[in-house]
This record gives sequence, structure tokens and C-alpha cells, in this order.
Amino acid sequence: MYDDPSTMGKTEANYQPLTPLRFLERSATTFPGHPAYQYGGSVTVSYLQLYDRTRQLASALSQLGVGYGSTVSVMLNNTPQMLESHYGVPMTGGVLHSINTRLDAPTIAYMLEHCEASIVMVDTEFSDVMSAAIDLLVANGAPAPTVIDVVDDVAAADSGVPLIGSRTGSMEYEALVATGEASYEWVGNIKDEWQAISLNYTSGTTGRPKGVVYHHRGAYLLAMGNVVDATIGKHPKYLWTLPMFHCNGWCFPWSISIEAGTHVCLRKTEAEAIFRELSQRGVTHLCGAPVVMSMLINAPDEVKPPLPLANPVDFLTAAAPPPAPVLAAMETMGFLVTHVSAVYL
Amino acid sequence: MYDDPSTMGKTEANYQPLTPLRFLERSATTFPGHPAYQYGGSVTVSYLQLYDRTRQLASALSQLGVGYGSTVSVMLNNTPQMLESHYGVPMTGGVLHSINTRLDAPTIAYMLEHCEASIVMVDTEFSDVMSAAIDLLVANGAPAPTVIDVVDDVAAADSGVPLIGSRTGSMEYEALVATGEASYEWVGNIKDEWQAISLNYTSGTTGRPKGVVYHHRGAYLLAMGNVVDATIGKHPKYLWTLPMFHCNGWCFPWSISIEAGTHVCLRKTEAEAIFRELSQRGVTHLCGAPVVMSMLINAPDEVKPPLPLANPVDFLTAAAPPPAPVLAAMETMGFLVTHVSAVYL
Repeated sequence: MYDDPSTMGKTEANYQPLTPLRFLERSATTFPGHPAYQYGGSVTVSYLQLYDRTRQLASALSQLGVGYGSTVSVMLNNTPQMLESHYGVPMTGGVLHSINTRLDAPTIAYMLEHCEASIVMVDTEFSDVMSAAIDLLVANGAPAPTVIDVVDDVAAADSGVPLIGSRTGSMEYEALVATGEASYEWVGNIKDEWQAISLNYTSGTTGRPKGVVYHHRGAYLLAMGNVVDATIGKHPKYLWTLPMFHCNGWCFPWSISIEAGTHVCLRKTEAEAIFRELSQRGVTHLCGAPVVMSMLINAPDEVKPPLPLANPVDFLTAAAPPPAPVLAAMETMGFLVTHVSAVYL
Repeated sequence: MYDDPSTMGKTEANYQPLTPLRFLERSATTFPGHPAYQYGGSVTVSYLQLYDRTRQLASALSQLGVGYGSTVSVMLNNTPQMLESHYGVPMTGGVLHSINTRLDAPTIAYMLEHCEASIVMVDTEFSDVMSAAIDLLVANGAPAPTVIDVVDDVAAADSGVPLIGSRTGSMEYEALVATGEASYEWVGNIKDEWQAISLNYTSGTTGRPKGVVYHHRGAYLLAMGNVVDATIGKHPKYLWTLPMFHCNGWCFPWSISIEAGTHVCLRKTEAEAIFRELSQRGVTHLCGAPVVMSMLINAPDEVKPPLPLANPVDFLTAAAPPPAPVLAAMETMGFLVTHVSAVYL
């Protein structure tokens, strides 16, 4: 007789933990030269380059002591560094904590203390509020985390200022990445698919923020579910209008790698920039709350490209269903709107 | 501090085993009236009906003692009963063993003895070889399984004979299903995603057939992987040219339910029937070995519809890459050929 079914399954030899980090490894192997992300007028990074950079980031963080049980907090816009953090931080075995960029210092201080962040990566735009938060943290007797400045040279050049905000950290992000090795071996750091990959806190609700932990298994499954549910085909071009700090951008930082798509990073979710990216880059998908639809509909005519858009763009929205006039206006502009709600598979 | 990451994951409360059976439950809930399968000129069964029928089958089998640790062997063509078995058998907690319809009695007898099948469901076309196999089994001292006849009324009517082959079983499939309850609760039978869902044996290789067990987790993941990899969108129409007995039809019996697609069942993989289904049903996807492509290319002109096909059809093939002239001829007929090979995610 063949062995009892109850013993046919999980073994040390055949167990490969589900983790969305594998998606990047696969696209870097299968489509190494395909653009993984684009940003501003000049930045294009291929899948192989992204895989190398994220392994470098993981290697550099691990040299700073980050690993299983560690938390790295980030307060970033939808820039390439935020995308890279979604891979590089969990590759260490540690947990990515994304901070809503609209929060105030006391709330941030509470989170940093609660999650015992050892490293904080902060866009220089938010250095002041982060400094205030760390001051509160230290005043409360907690150790100060190491601060890494994320300097957005691309946006600084666009806006004509040498530096947005101010530098307060001990090291700059690119310098940190440069200390890491692309040969870093991360696979062994994910021993169990139920291991935490990210930590997000509630905000805007009553009382203290409450932490929500994603495990690698859940992030893998939701990332796959997004591709299936949104019918995302090969090589999508995804515009980052939904904040990655919000529920890890619904897991799209990982979903897009499944199909070797191109992330179009976007520092600010503003109508003019969105329309520019849509018309110039051939974007195929974006996500956003209903308020983003209203922003697009009500944008001044001079920032709108000729409508309808040349190619249909899938717009995924969630929360309360949008009113019929909003849907109609979106369709007139050339968007295919899909409203998603909680579904379990 | 938030709890240690190692303890944040799997608990009794949050563990939902991955199983492809959930895909059917979901489509039956979300698209209850959408056609789940079509067969011949007259048979269309909706998702709600399929879910009801498979729960009835599971209920009926469980009344015959099938459950965790049991094996149900089936020797069937790509008819609706074969599709239903892919859901109804594992819903009991038991294991589906699919038999290659080209095998001889000694090989079948070896398998039945090895897997300790308690039930055998057999298309009456194969009753003779199955009877001979069971005789060998019994002569070898093993208990005889209960035999259920699968009578294909649709094909019998098409071919103008009252019954294809002969009846040898103790009960007919439809009568068996009728003894079951659609309210059957199956979810609790899948306690662990590493539990076996199906058993397939090698054939055509040296020595005795070797059993390969699929677990629910693996079937879930491959089913999802198919949808992602083949870019199967909403409501595909899938033609059953690949035998379901072959590696469970690459898990497509489960994949198609993910997108609430329609299975087009096909008793025999023959060029005339394939072209008829392609041109009359709006098929979007099919799978097959390279030999199926050769069959289509070399079919007599009188069985071919006007080519190229009105809508592009995705043809997924595996094994050795097809030669360039075969690919070119397929493209000329209107197929989009994708060659897949082993990929792990």
C-alpha cells in the first residue's frame, strides 16, 4: 500500500516556504533586462538590477544587525527606495514597518517604541517630524534607532531645490546600499512561511494605533490573488498612486513582480503627474481610493491629456463603491474601473 | 513590544488549509448561474449545479465508507463525471486515483491493489478491461472494490448505440449521485493542506508503475500558477483535449474554477470534434501534447472550419519544444501557442 496520506506531505526535504520574495528572484532570472521600475525622466532599473540592489540592501542591513525578529521602520513616499524596502528588508528575515507619511510625532514615537525599530529609513521631506518622534522616544527611555536618510535626487532636481527637507540621519540610503553585497544569500532567512514580513498600524481610529502583522504566506497569496483577480497579464505597467505604506500597497509591490511588470514610481499622487505618467508611459494598471478618481475627474483641463486615453487603463478601487456618476466619468476618460472588496479564497 | 514574529502566524483560529476545492465553492457563490461545463449538444451545468452535484457525489461516496485515507479509482474519458470526480472525491477527505485509459488489465490490477481502492468508477467503454483487472486482483487475494458504472448517455446517443461497452458494476453513477445530499459538509474533511488529494501512477516507464501523490496545497498552488502563467482572464472557455487522467489535467480541472470558466468536455481527442467545438463554442484555451498540434495541422480539410479561427485560441503545450514548422502552422490556423516547462515559484 502507498503510505498513509497524512504522512505524504510536508517534510524538511520538500518544504519551500511561500514568500513573495521569490517572485523577484524569478523575474530577475527569467526577464533580467526588463524594466522593474521607472522614476522621473531618467531612472530605469531592470529586474536583475533590482534583485541585485535589494540583496545589497539586505546585506547592508544585516551588517547593521537586522535579521529575524528585527523591525525596520520606513517613512517614505512611493519612490524606488520604498519599493526596494519591500524586498530588501524582509530578505534579512526582518520585518518592514511602513509609516503613514501624514502622521504626527507622538503617534510615530508610539509606533517606533511599540515595534522596537532598530533602523528608521526616512525621506528627508519627513526628517523634522521623525526627529521630533525620536526625541519623544528617547525622552521616554527607549533607545534611539539608527536613522538612514533617503534623499530623492530625482525629485529635488525636478523641483529645482538641492535637497527636499533636511538630513538628520547617520548615513544616506545609497551609501548604505553600497556597503552591501549582491551575492547576499537571503533564502535561508525565511525558514517558515508564517514568519512576519511586514507590520502596519491602524490610524485614524479610536485609541492607540493597533499593529497588523502580515506573514510571508499571506503576502504571497494576496499577491497572487491580485494578479488573478485583476487579470494582470504579462509585463503590466503599474503606476504607484496607492500609497505603499497603506497595507503594503495591497501587496502590489510583490504582485507586479509575478508578471515581470514595470513599477512607475510617483512621489506625490497629484492629478497633473498622474495624467503625465498615464499618457507618456503606457500605464496599464493603477489602484486608488475613490478620492483619487475624484481628483482625476475634477482636474483642470490643462493638465489632462487628450481624452479618452489612448489605451484603456485598469483602475482598481476599494472601500465604499463609487457613485454611478464617478464611474461614468471615469469610463468616459478611458478607465476600466474595478471595485474590489474582501474576498477569501 | 509586539509579539515575537515566530508566534504571529499559524494558529488553530486563523489556519485555513489551501485547497482547490474552495475555488468551486467561490464560483458557485459568486457566479452561480454561469456555465461550469458543457457537453455534447444538450448538456450545460451551472456553477451552483456543479457544486451541488459534487457535494452529492461526496455525500454518496461517504455513505459507502469513503473518507480520509480512502482511495477512489476512476477510469474515465474527459466527460463531466471525470470533472465532477476531481471535486466530489476529495471533498470526502479521500484520494482520487485516475487511471490512464490505455492501460492493460495486469497494470490496472497492480495499481488497484497498491492503492487499496475501495471504489472504482469506470466508463462502460472500459468495463471489460476493468473486469479482467478486478479478476486478477481477487485471484491475488485482495478484496474486490465496489464498481460504479459511468454510462455516457450523451455519447451513446451521438453514436447511435444504446450503450457503449457493457455494464458490470453494482450501481450507475447518476443513481449513486442521487443518493447523496447537496447539503453535505465537506470543509471539515480537509484538516491539513498537506493531505493527499490525488494519486497518479507513472506508465510507459521501466518496471512497476510508481505512485505520485498530490496534496491539496500543491494542487491549489499549481492551479493558481496556471491562471497566472497562461494569463487566463475572467470566464475562459476551456476545451478538454488534455486527458484529465494525465497529472490531473495539469490541475486545470481546478484552475478553470478560479476564473469561473466553462469546461467544454470532450470524450475523444479527435481533430473533427476539436475543430467543431472550437468553431461552435468560442473556446479560448486548450492544452495538449505536441501530438495534438500535429493532429490538428494534418487533419483533412473537410473537418477544418474556415481558418484562421474567428477568435485567437491559446494552446498550451509542454514536453519537448515543438519544431518551428509546427508552431508556424498552428499560428496560421489562429492559435497562440505557449510552451510551458517546469517552473517553481
